[in-house]
Amino acid sequence: MAPKTVLIVYAHQCSRSFNSAAKDMALKALTAHGYNVIMSDLYAMNFCAAATAADIKGKLKNPEHFLYAEETWIAWKEGRLSDDINEEHRKVAQADLIIFQFPLYWSSFPAIMKGWLERVLTRGFAYTLQNTYDNGLCKDKKAVLSFTTGAAESKFHPDGINGDINVLLWPLQNGVLRFCGFQILAPQIFWGPQQASPSARTAMLEAWQSRLKGLMDEKPLAFAPNDLFDLTSQAGFRLRPEVKEASASKPYGLTTGQHLGKPLPPNNQTKPPSST
Amino acid sequence: MAPKTVLIVYAHQCSRSFNSAAKDMALKALTAHGYNVIMSDLYAMNFCAAATAADIKGKLKNPEHFLYAEETWIAWKEGRLSDDINEEHRKVAQADLIIFQFPLYWSSFPAIMKGWLERVLTRGFAYTLQNTYDNGLCKDKKAVLSFTTGAAESKFHPDGINGDINVLLWPLQNGVLRFCGFQILAPQIFWGPQQASPSARTAMLEAWQSRLKGLMDEKPLAFAPNDLFDLTSQAGFRLRPEVKEASASKPYGLTTGQHLGKPLPPNNQTKPPSST
Repeated sequence: MAPKTVLIVYAHQCSRSFNSAAKDMALKALTAHGYNVIMSDLYAMNFCAAATAADIKGKLKNPEHFLYAEETWIAWKEGRLSDDINEEHRKVAQADLIIFQFPLYWSSFPAIMKGWLERVLTRGFAYTLQNTYDNGLCKDKKAVLSFTTGAAESKFHPDGINGDINVLLWPLQNGVLRFCGFQILAPQIFWGPQQASPSARTAMLEAWQSRLKGLMDEKPLAFAPNDLFDLTSQAGFRLRPEVKEASASKPYGLTTGQHLGKPLPPNNQTKPPSST
Repeated sequence: MAPKTVLIVYAHQCSRSFNSAAKDMALKALTAHGYNVIMSDLYAMNFCAAATAADIKGKLKNPEHFLYAEETWIAWKEGRLSDDINEEHRKVAQADLIIFQFPLYWSSFPAIMKGWLERVLTRGFAYTLQNTYDNGLCKDKKAVLSFTTGAAESKFHPDGINGDINVLLWPLQNGVLRFCGFQILAPQIFWGPQQASPSARTAMLEAWQSRLKGLMDEKPLAFAPNDLFDLTSQAGFRLRPEVKEASASKPYGLTTGQHLGKPLPPNNQTKPPSST
């Protein structure tokens, strides 16, 4: 059996950062465990973050009314996307797992990584209007967010001043990754390494090292599956009425809490589940 | 009295887009109402989205261990930020209100606008470690998100497949704008203009035109004020225990729902409040 491939999409400017150390740890540990590891080091690549018509070779379909998702979908079908996007598509196509390694900037991905998502998760390649969520075109791949925070963990509790980390992660995990079908593993959160002692930073990296061995086999987070929704324009792609009641007593992952009208339990995404 | 100034930060690639029409409407209506309107047209400016050491002129304080927020803070104090950031700082300093006009890309700001936020909301200029939220350095300014969605409104209900729009907006509004102190006006949401009829699109723009007249005088959204939190490291910047109980019966804006442990009411941010 061919070794499985892990793509690390990495966004930090500095090779001596904690993020760089976490990236290096993943590269080293996964390689040692027999995985094929490939990398997109976005700042080092000077990766273009802006989604523009420059991403398309040749004539635009509708230059008078440019719509990025439409034009890149057509360009993808016709092999007219820019070389840098094609190169990232080749990496994603190979990957069984993508690790996104980044510092949380303003409660979200750094802009350069958001640009990677906008430009690489092309319609047709990562999703279609018919293929989203459970049926997203990346449904056979896994993904994990591995990130550092500037602030301490307590600020990201549901009653912390920054608000629940799980609410901050919903648009990143459900709105981007799960939309394309990725099976999402529990996030790896490094709380405030900048304020931590050297020994605490070392301990954080060692915990990551331990997790990496079984990462590929972890059970993904639970999200509300597509069949809980009435996926018709008439019904508005909303939860089926009978589902809300029937689901009330079932265990669901926190990220589906809002769909099932349950309060979000405190930080239950911050500890990786045991491997399956 | 000098006329008030509105800065429109605009991100769409195409001058014939609905976003462009919304931006033009704001420019025209606000000018007609006596405001001074200035503009940052990010794609037209080819605005750099990546936060890098190139934003700093002269020597880095700590080139071996580059930390963007620290280095740009020092560069800001010493007048060594790049010219394009200085130019945006001049615009923000002038502005009484900032309108962010953009298409919602992957449940968030387009990367080019996220880059503007990362590079322009410089520590020292927009916030300090002591000056956040109620005390953020932008507390005398207002801000409003004005954006289009690709999908229909029903998909963004709490039981819609994309999840509650208010959850998607929390990191943008609380995590970015309110962190810097901005008074946040109710978002202007244009639901799925691409799928709408020409007359429906016209009606959406007319509603925006009507709102623009009184926009500057609208009452901002309510967020949990700083004094509800114990802002000490020991207490972890969390809600004071006595607050949760005492606040249970008070009316708070939806965006503080998570802080006060209340369920989010459906879409109550989608209708602008009446002017004060």
